[in-house]
Amino acid sequence: MDKPKEECGVVGVYNVNKASEVAYLCMHALQHRGQESAGIVVSDGENITSKKGMGLLSNAFANFDLTKLKGKIATGHVRYSTTGASKPQNTQPLVLDYSEGLVAVAHNGNLTNAKGLRDEYEAHGSIFQTSTDSEVVVHVMAKPGHVAKPNNIGHCLGHHIKGAFSFIFMFKNKMIAVRDPNGFRPLSLGKLDTGYVVASETVAFDQIGAEFIREIEPGEMLTFTESGIKSEFIIDEDKIRPSYCIFEHVYFARPDSFIFGDTVHEVRKNLGKNLAREHPIDADVVIPIPDGGISAAIGFAQAANIPLDFGFIRNHYVGRTFLNPVQAGRSKEVHLKHNVIKNVVRDKKVILVDDSLVRGTTMKRLVQAVKNAGAKEVHLRIPCPPHKYPCYYGVDFATKGELMAANHSIEEMEHILKIDSLRYISIEGLLNSTSQPNNHYCTACFTGCYPLENPDEMTNKYRMEQGSLLTEVES
Amino acid sequence: MDKPKEECGVVGVYNVNKASEVAYLCMHALQHRGQESAGIVVSDGENITSKKGMGLLSNAFANFDLTKLKGKIATGHVRYSTTGASKPQNTQPLVLDYSEGLVAVAHNGNLTNAKGLRDEYEAHGSIFQTSTDSEVVVHVMAKPGHVAKPNNIGHCLGHHIKGAFSFIFMFKNKMIAVRDPNGFRPLSLGKLDTGYVVASETVAFDQIGAEFIREIEPGEMLTFTESGIKSEFIIDEDKIRPSYCIFEHVYFARPDSFIFGDTVHEVRKNLGKNLAREHPIDADVVIPIPDGGISAAIGFAQAANIPLDFGFIRNHYVGRTFLNPVQAGRSKEVHLKHNVIKNVVRDKKVILVDDSLVRGTTMKRLVQAVKNAGAKEVHLRIPCPPHKYPCYYGVDFATKGELMAANHSIEEMEHILKIDSLRYISIEGLLNSTSQPNNHYCTACFTGCYPLENPDEMTNKYRMEQGSLLTEVES
Amino acid sequence: MDKPKEECGVVGVYNVNKASEVAYLCMHALQHRGQESAGIVVSDGENITSKKGMGLLSNAFANFDLTKLKGKIATGHVRYSTTGASKPQNTQPLVLDYSEGLVAVAHNGNLTNAKGLRDEYEAHGSIFQTSTDSEVVVHVMAKPGHVAKPNNIGHCLGHHIKGAFSFIFMFKNKMIAVRDPNGFRPLSLGKLDTGYVVASETVAFDQIGAEFIREIEPGEMLTFTESGIKSEFIIDEDKIRPSYCIFEHVYFARPDSFIFGDTVHEVRKNLGKNLAREHPIDADVVIPIPDGGISAAIGFAQAANIPLDFGFIRNHYVGRTFLNPVQAGRSKEVHLKHNVIKNVVRDKKVILVDDSLVRGTTMKRLVQAVKNAGAKEVHLRIPCPPHKYPCYYGVDFATKGELMAANHSIEEMEHILKIDSLRYISIEGLLNSTSQPNNHYCTACFTGCYPLENPDEMTNKYRMEQGSLLTEVES
Amino acid sequence: MDKPKEECGVVGVYNVNKASEVAYLCMHALQHRGQESAGIVVSDGENITSKKGMGLLSNAFANFDLTKLKGKIATGHVRYSTTGASKPQNTQPLVLDYSEGLVAVAHNGNLTNAKGLRDEYEAHGSIFQTSTDSEVVVHVMAKPGHVAKPNNIGHCLGHHIKGAFSFIFMFKNKMIAVRDPNGFRPLSLGKLDTGYVVASETVAFDQIGAEFIREIEPGEMLTFTESGIKSEFIIDEDKIRPSYCIFEHVYFARPDSFIFGDTVHEVRKNLGKNLAREHPIDADVVIPIPDGGISAAIGFAQAANIPLDFGFIRNHYVGRTFLNPVQAGRSKEVHLKHNVIKNVVRDKKVILVDDSLVRGTTMKRLVQAVKNAGAKEVHLRIPCPPHKYPCYYGVDFATKGELMAANHSIEEMEHILKIDSLRYISIEGLLNSTSQPNNHYCTACFTGCYPLENPDEMTNKYRMEQGSLLTEVES
Repeated sequence: MDKPKEECGVVGVYNVNKASEVAYLCMHALQHRGQESAGIVVSDGENITSKKGMGLLSNAFANFDLTKLKGKIATGHVRYSTTGASKPQNTQPLVLDYSEGLVAVAHNGNLTNAKGLRDEYEAHGSIFQTSTDSEVVVHVMAKPGHVAKPNNIGHCLGHHIKGAFSFIFMFKNKMIAVRDPNGFRPLSLGKLDTGYVVASETVAFDQIGAEFIREIEPGEMLTFTESGIKSEFIIDEDKIRPSYCIFEHVYFARPDSFIFGDTVHEVRKNLGKNLAREHPIDADVVIPIPDGGISAAIGFAQAANIPLDFGFIRNHYVGRTFLNPVQAGRSKEVHLKHNVIKNVVRDKKVILVDDSLVRGTTMKRLVQAVKNAGAKEVHLRIPCPPHKYPCYYGVDFATKGELMAANHSIEEMEHILKIDSLRYISIEGLLNSTSQPNNHYCTACFTGCYPLENPDEMTNKYRMEQGSLLTEVES
Repeated sequence: MDKPKEECGVVGVYNVNKASEVAYLCMHALQHRGQESAGIVVSDGENITSKKGMGLLSNAFANFDLTKLKGKIATGHVRYSTTGASKPQNTQPLVLDYSEGLVAVAHNGNLTNAKGLRDEYEAHGSIFQTSTDSEVVVHVMAKPGHVAKPNNIGHCLGHHIKGAFSFIFMFKNKMIAVRDPNGFRPLSLGKLDTGYVVASETVAFDQIGAEFIREIEPGEMLTFTESGIKSEFIIDEDKIRPSYCIFEHVYFARPDSFIFGDTVHEVRKNLGKNLAREHPIDADVVIPIPDGGISAAIGFAQAANIPLDFGFIRNHYVGRTFLNPVQAGRSKEVHLKHNVIKNVVRDKKVILVDDSLVRGTTMKRLVQAVKNAGAKEVHLRIPCPPHKYPCYYGVDFATKGELMAANHSIEEMEHILKIDSLRYISIEGLLNSTSQPNNHYCTACFTGCYPLENPDEMTNKYRMEQGSLLTEVES
Repeated sequence: MDKPKEECGVVGVYNVNKASEVAYLCMHALQHRGQESAGIVVSDGENITSKKGMGLLSNAFANFDLTKLKGKIATGHVRYSTTGASKPQNTQPLVLDYSEGLVAVAHNGNLTNAKGLRDEYEAHGSIFQTSTDSEVVVHVMAKPGHVAKPNNIGHCLGHHIKGAFSFIFMFKNKMIAVRDPNGFRPLSLGKLDTGYVVASETVAFDQIGAEFIREIEPGEMLTFTESGIKSEFIIDEDKIRPSYCIFEHVYFARPDSFIFGDTVHEVRKNLGKNLAREHPIDADVVIPIPDGGISAAIGFAQAANIPLDFGFIRNHYVGRTFLNPVQAGRSKEVHLKHNVIKNVVRDKKVILVDDSLVRGTTMKRLVQAVKNAGAKEVHLRIPCPPHKYPCYYGVDFATKGELMAANHSIEEMEHILKIDSLRYISIEGLLNSTSQPNNHYCTACFTGCYPLENPDEMTNKYRMEQGSLLTEVES
Repeated sequence: MDKPKEECGVVGVYNVNKASEVAYLCMHALQHRGQESAGIVVSDGENITSKKGMGLLSNAFANFDLTKLKGKIATGHVRYSTTGASKPQNTQPLVLDYSEGLVAVAHNGNLTNAKGLRDEYEAHGSIFQTSTDSEVVVHVMAKPGHVAKPNNIGHCLGHHIKGAFSFIFMFKNKMIAVRDPNGFRPLSLGKLDTGYVVASETVAFDQIGAEFIREIEPGEMLTFTESGIKSEFIIDEDKIRPSYCIFEHVYFARPDSFIFGDTVHEVRKNLGKNLAREHPIDADVVIPIPDGGISAAIGFAQAANIPLDFGFIRNHYVGRTFLNPVQAGRSKEVHLKHNVIKNVVRDKKVILVDDSLVRGTTMKRLVQAVKNAGAKEVHLRIPCPPHKYPCYYGVDFATKGELMAANHSIEEMEHILKIDSLRYISIEGLLNSTSQPNNHYCTACFTGCYPLENPDEMTNKYRMEQGSLLTEVES
């Protein structure tokens, strides 16, 4: 997998019948945000019940009867895919018992002071059972001095926890949804029947026929109780500085989602248009790498006035189990996922448009396939700037050594990819494709300018190693 | 599911190392032709070994080690999806023992004299263990008078079996691939390493890096032995009348396959172009129903000179297990598979292009979704003529009562679908989108003109009931 | 596994509500007769439904809802355990379609002319899908000349089929139970609620609270229809010569079953008594190898007036999956199933009593364990004569090369087993432990005197090779 | 299930190759101590790897490759069976991270101050993820003041933890085995190859061919490091007061185990003898309820000079999955596990001997079955005194309302069971059947005299409710 990995999708359901089914359907719509594991925790006001499992929703809940998860409050979580050993113990939502009772936690994002906090709390006698950020947060919440605060969770998140987070906390009778003061990750509020739904992306609302109300604001905390919804800010409102993750628009979010004030598909079409304007070229056909490159390719073709065509067909049956029965040797030789339609490219000057270019391994094979099919020229256009820096806020890019653009000039990359030309959109072109002020986005992975102070060394190291403590083998 | 069902994909591999892995990868590329069950049978020259399972390849072979299927000759089969009880006993390839030894049979198509033959053979003492056509064929082959013929299989298929068939027969040391004299279903020959591969569609060759040699001819039988390939015709060549199933181009085959002398994607683009010319209309945007409608929409938009855009996003995680944990009630209310990108259609005159329109149930919901998103007008354009007649050659359309066009006028359908206009391509427009002579295609499902005499009543009835004998419950 | 293998248990249920549950419970009581696979076929008068699976009942029907098998007629089958590749296609009851309609067949025993018949029918055009005897029988039944007979099944079994068989045939509205004219294998009739139950052993009736009526006679065929039960004999009654398998008493049947006119436990106690009388010896303690040796040891201890004690504890959790995760190397070194209670044997003269001694491998380890625990002397007493000849009637002994007594004198065996003395019961002692005339038992495995003419060479060879045609891999 | 439930078996392996396989085999031998779940944690000196699962070992590790658990140090745990919802999160060994690094904990027993400690630690900010005692212990260990102690674990267990415990703690390079100062639960030390094995019962050593060295003493803590084994006591040795759980001898432990200075089988034979002497009776036959009653019945028959016979056959295939496919209605009517051999009891005066009599439900059915088979009289003899009081040290008896003897006189019970006489052994008879001083055993469940002060109300309540916090559904 050459693509970066998102770190999860979260769902909260409050005061809706069959809350677990609603959560399940929302998670289905958010499946693209995490395929490693899935979990739902539900409360009927008295009892809290959970079900978790590894893999896609359809695996994790295979043959499961959702009516076993009774209640009108639920939280759900889908987690990203790792290539290494699976870690059932990290599957979210975590459920923990502290002095305030049971709490379920679902988290999207990445904390930048997790390890420092963990060491500090361990030194004071805390014990840890997972390697997740979320467990650290509950330890902070459980500290007697923090429990005593009138707004326990808001206080902890606003004053002790740093980094990127969209959180759902579920108690027996209460639900809390919070977004970090930078608003790195999306989080939206919807209305369904008698109650409310909170989800990482608005496609979850479309899936269940809920009405989209609004995005939760950066730094905002919504508390759902029998008395209704209460909105607060976890830090002073005037200190809030949005830094929306632009890569959500470029790659992660579904095109049909509305996040950070824009429809993703529209932003991507704009990216394609701006890209075409920045790097005009004459060619016979514009071909997207499906599905990620489709929106940008439509914009590109339109702005460049070059016909759009489909030159790749994607096999929709490719899944994680595919490689299982076939030996590595042979599977490497073959194009598992994309197949070229030969006579779309034969004797043509071809422009390929993908969403991004991180490692380049797959792209090299795709270019080769297009050339083998008889293309005269192949030009690659990328609607995001070159990736050169790590993300500390929840995206698991390749390591720096694997980031193609961090190690090579454009010319070198053209040579490596055996391509006639490679062009990226500029930072300006990128930011001008959206509707919000340019300084409301985080572009650290392109520029190295991080909106928060860097994670302390410990935390960064921890981030790298966080799987190393215990390997729990699933089967 | 509103869409018709194809009855299978077949693969044969001769004299290739790790033949079972090659077959598996080919079947992966042919997965769209059948998702109910999958099976591979392999021979190492001495022993024949098989593995079959229900569901997608990834289910049927989950955790399976393909190296257990040793040998250089293999045949594989993917079977279409039924909605009723699964029938493990019908999973192909069948393996049967008769006087000539063990034979494995993989079949795509539908025989029109199966029931008559079955009754005849039962009356002579034959016993049956499946309700498949393929078992009938082996009974015919096993008849002592037929065994005695110099070309046992060719004789039986040419003189006793009627209908549509692309067959692979695998013996310990021999493989035979045959296509019926009408060539209803596609079947192609490829070259890989030291040997050969036969597959329903050429995408199987792309998957494994095999070289496409040519299509097997209607009525042609290829015999693969240690001495090489022998080509024969099972009836007099001058009696061969091609009737390629045009619906393979319209719907079944993958766009990147080359069948019946054309690349499917090109045919579909032509369909879109001809459709646009036959029914010109002014609109703001052309929107495909993905993925089936994409190729035709590209052609349509181009010919109509109206911008193409993507207004639907398809959830790629929808699978058969999805409905499992969610109760029917709620799932019916929601749009499981396609979601509208609202601002693509808002305040627009929209043209929707799908591949075909059989029952109309899903289309009705999609149209509603587009209207709800604020479209001013919605026009539907279908790049194949109205379906009015049953297929006896391997396609499982809805029953006539469910075929929308068989029961309603265009105007009625516009009313039912709550759409501003509905137009179909003409038979001429359809046939002119391909490169072969117009009379080389079967268009019976549109015209009612069947290239073969109709199945005897018995067989037709049998076709309807063929599941009724025994229900084998899987789990 | 050193022990011989029984070839199955059969069950038939006629006109009882929830027939599939009744069959399941009966099969549970007969599980000792077969652990490789299990299947149930049920008829509701119109539709026939089946469910089969590999392994123990609890595996084969894991998570299965028996209410899916609707009807008041059922037949069930448990099949013996093989060590080689599993063969799902041979799982019984077979269900086949012939000119008389669907028939389900459950078979316990072994036919001695199966291969000859198979070759004959293949030469006449029959095709085979399994390597079971039962399929051969249905081919014979399906022959038009045989179908025309007033008593199709009785005629075929009486005049064309040779060997050992207890059969259940189930049709839509009819059930037939037959026992071969020698009565090699047990088969009994019981009454439950509104209908009847037929089972290999009476313990099945105890399990469901059915009333035991009587054993079905050798050569008797019972036909269950709406008009009641009809009894016939498949050959002339005066030609019937019982040859009950004495090894059912010695080893196979459950001690609480009543077969061949005796309670098995009582026969085994008599075997122990007669053995003690034939080979008197002074010792401190009599120790059974549980569970098989318990009944005989009780009789032995009583007749010899030596205290009985338990010196071995059997681990009840040993199952087929046990060896799965542990490497062969280590598991061979350990005593998986039986553990010695050391101070029961320390400094004692010990008499061990098992049910039989076939290969001797396990016994050698048990003797060693007893010696290691400090026994002064170890004497082995076996309540059946030495096994020297193969069985053609349904018992899968080790091959002759593995039959210890076929290759070694008593003295040699004492040496091999490192035992102080080994004694077997005599043929007379064996036969005098039962209530029926001595010539009503088959003792061929001890004496080499076979009650039927030997299987033709073909069949015998076939018996040895019958797995070789097709290997169907389960997972 | 009428029988009380043991709360687990533990295993520790130090410095032995393939430690996980050794642990697995030991757990196999200890499977009778817990069937709800199983887990193994292993260390290779650097990395700690775990695998856990629900059900029997063979389920929990089905298809699992133990070589994935690499290392020479391992700890394993089997957990008792609950009837309610399974709780994967409580599966042991727990693995937790605290300031000293990762520690795996396997526990047999029950703490009496767990809830008080839990509340205390929660009030100080601790969070809990399971409802196990073991997690409480690690919180105590992790307290900075306790970490600072030279003997962290010994200090905590000796001074802060109360109740019954046999613990294994595993670190990366170290293993610790401890037994509480009362020695309620057994724990033994063995030698294997280059290292050591610790296990709840000595049968684990027999399983792997390890040499039994000695029992770990009450209050003793063994620390295994590269420098060897160190033995310490966690409280002053002169304050140690053994109170061995006598019910281990009566019921829990395997007869072939050596615990508390005696072989269990010998103790049980003595119980039978003493019981026969205390309550002499004339009868025809002594019949054990297998397998639990066998040892005592042998002693009883010998002392009473009445013949022993087997009148019940136990179906060895009964497992937890059995009831799955059969509806409750029918299964209640049938005798699932024990079947009477009718002619052993017909017209006889029968003495039944079981190991204990807790609820009486099953016994009532067994007595009825014996009467139905024609017994003249049925007398029941129980080799342990009547159960009247709850156990706080690790045995999950029925609730007091279900304890037959707590609510009824002997005469009433005779009436309820429809039995001719019922007699229990006396406390003296019980204690005189063992070799240790009478005051070295805990007999609280018979006498109400508890060796430790009673659990505080909180803990007792917690014990009752400890599943109620979170229900984690497995499938």
